[in-house]
Amino acid sequence: QLALEYDHVKLEKLKVAKSDLAGAREHVGKDLRKAIGVAMANIEKFHAAQLQPPMEVETMPGVLCKRKSMPIEKVGLYIPGGTAPLFSTVLMLAIPAKLAGCKEIIICTPPNQEGKIHPAILYTANLVGIEHVYKVGGAQAVAAMALGTESIPKVDKIFGPGNQYVTVAKQIATKYGVAIDMPAGPSEVMVVADDTADPAFVAADLLSQAEHGADSQAVLITMHEAVIEKVQEEIRKQIQKLPREKIAERALAQSMAILAKNDQQMLDIVNGYAAEHLILSLKNADEWAEHIEHAGSVFIGNFTPESAGDYASGTNHTLPTNGFARAYSGVSIDSFVKKITFQKITEEGLLALGPVVETMAAAELLEGHKNAVSIRLAKIMEKA
Amino acid sequence: QLALEYDHVKLEKLKVAKSDLAGAREHVGKDLRKAIGVAMANIEKFHAAQLQPPMEVETMPGVLCKRKSMPIEKVGLYIPGGTAPLFSTVLMLAIPAKLAGCKEIIICTPPNQEGKIHPAILYTANLVGIEHVYKVGGAQAVAAMALGTESIPKVDKIFGPGNQYVTVAKQIATKYGVAIDMPAGPSEVMVVADDTADPAFVAADLLSQAEHGADSQAVLITMHEAVIEKVQEEIRKQIQKLPREKIAERALAQSMAILAKNDQQMLDIVNGYAAEHLILSLKNADEWAEHIEHAGSVFIGNFTPESAGDYASGTNHTLPTNGFARAYSGVSIDSFVKKITFQKITEEGLLALGPVVETMAAAELLEGHKNAVSIRLAKIMEKA
Repeated sequence: QLALEYDHVKLEKLKVAKSDLAGAREHVGKDLRKAIGVAMANIEKFHAAQLQPPMEVETMPGVLCKRKSMPIEKVGLYIPGGTAPLFSTVLMLAIPAKLAGCKEIIICTPPNQEGKIHPAILYTANLVGIEHVYKVGGAQAVAAMALGTESIPKVDKIFGPGNQYVTVAKQIATKYGVAIDMPAGPSEVMVVADDTADPAFVAADLLSQAEHGADSQAVLITMHEAVIEKVQEEIRKQIQKLPREKIAERALAQSMAILAKNDQQMLDIVNGYAAEHLILSLKNADEWAEHIEHAGSVFIGNFTPESAGDYASGTNHTLPTNGFARAYSGVSIDSFVKKITFQKITEEGLLALGPVVETMAAAELLEGHKNAVSIRLAKIMEKA
Repeated sequence: QLALEYDHVKLEKLKVAKSDLAGAREHVGKDLRKAIGVAMANIEKFHAAQLQPPMEVETMPGVLCKRKSMPIEKVGLYIPGGTAPLFSTVLMLAIPAKLAGCKEIIICTPPNQEGKIHPAILYTANLVGIEHVYKVGGAQAVAAMALGTESIPKVDKIFGPGNQYVTVAKQIATKYGVAIDMPAGPSEVMVVADDTADPAFVAADLLSQAEHGADSQAVLITMHEAVIEKVQEEIRKQIQKLPREKIAERALAQSMAILAKNDQQMLDIVNGYAAEHLILSLKNADEWAEHIEHAGSVFIGNFTPESAGDYASGTNHTLPTNGFARAYSGVSIDSFVKKITFQKITEEGLLALGPVVETMAAAELLEGHKNAVSIRLAKIMEKA
């Protein structure tokens, strides 16, 4: 048992007992329970609006084409342990999984040294209706979900953040036919600010990113040199008060402030960077938002901090990092369904469409494809 | 230049000249041009219906969340050469790319030994509005699109089928930050038949799959032993007439017929197999279709051959194989966009939502996240 070797934990049972899930409520303060409830309602509202009804098009008379979302049956959600109990990630992954209709939703999360999982994680899991929580973390949790073990079932798709080992394990899992949410990388924020931005707000936003991890990146871009100076001053003030000051300092060491010449250059850099989180602290933030082509999630105006989206506004916080926002979306209902197409052709429909297929198949030298149509057309003619 | 070494071709220029694209029309027969036109119209109709308008939800008063599809800017479409000129794949990939609004769409496809590309491929590319076609195939084409070369631009996402080398090259490309359409594997069909199915039709459908490649799989499942016998007899008859008989024979050698005991067992096997192509040759095919949980594309009834969807009904033929239909969708408009979320919070909105975020951030021990809200709430209070 790897949990013993690496996490110095000896576990009786990997699966969290039903009574422990239900009992976690007692160990979570009333304020936090209330806050989680509000976040849950917002996240549900925004994700429920993403559900798509089946779509149907008659492309030609007698040729009916349909497309329908179907839930991915078995999904595994990885919730990191480590220093912070990330119950917010439980909300962000389990709520869309439930809404999408996934039948089997399991959570793997590492226990602490006493073999326990933080009550806020168990409480949140229970609240959103997750019944299967396993005390296992790291690459071995991903391997278990990808291949299945005696106690942990194999899943179709694995979600969730994690350290570099978890990330690599997820990549390897794809070779065993298991899908993953998206490639992961260190988190980042870009703040676009003009002289209407509040330097204290901007500094706080950059720091909230920097405290995530030493490999986080916080980028400020502006056309005003004074904005950079004021924000830097504010950062120096605010960073001293942060418990995670050391981490934030290391992240800031590899972050940057960019002084742009004009609006167009600034926009080009913003779209080129394709930030996971993009904050628009600009007078004309709404207009700017219209021109964003690549980003994970965009925060418009001075009173929309990234942390709102990280926790409770309703949008998802599992987002593409490291430039992947050029091609990937954040987690959404889409991530928990696949779309199946259907088609139904009547005899009349095939009379019209059949010759088209025959001609194309013959031109691609696929006589068998052609014959599947010809043999049907002959039968229709015969009957007529 | 690898093209020289492997394909025994010496090329003056990798890029197909504009005049060659426009001139291909002359080398494509009128019937084929007409057929391609009908297929294009159907594919456009079905894919245009998949475009999603922006979505907006006010999750709480003053908390506005949005989601908007934005095109993936640069996409590369790989069109295999080899024995068959797969112009149908040009339609299936380029039409949704165009509809999604991708700015830069390039095609890579291997030339023949005279350094030329089949006119049907060039004609189709030109018809759907593709201006950049490069004469390069194989793993080196994928590498070029993933990394960029002097003549071939780097893209954000690579689409298209290919042999095992192309498939591995695509997997490797993902490590360089390039997205791919889906993991590829050999093609397959499953036909579910009862005694209302026409054995000749079923045999033709199985053979049209078998002629794809020696690694294709064609599976028949039924509750009637007589159906299996009659279909096998028909296969023996029809296979003799196929130019690709040898390939089909090898594919059939690893295919199978399954005799199910009852409807439920049959349905369980069908959903367990998660076929790329699923043909329902059943009296109650419509009812059956409602119970399909995992499949790439479903063909309902006796007059809906797979080849219709392969070419011209309107649905996409780039589908998840090898059980990937449990978690992946076929190519669609979704494949060519990413969805960006936006949020805008008013001061009033933050007064309500802020304390929720503060409580949750504190519980996750992320003081910087909390502070980004607190500092704003303090400013709002100050003003009031």
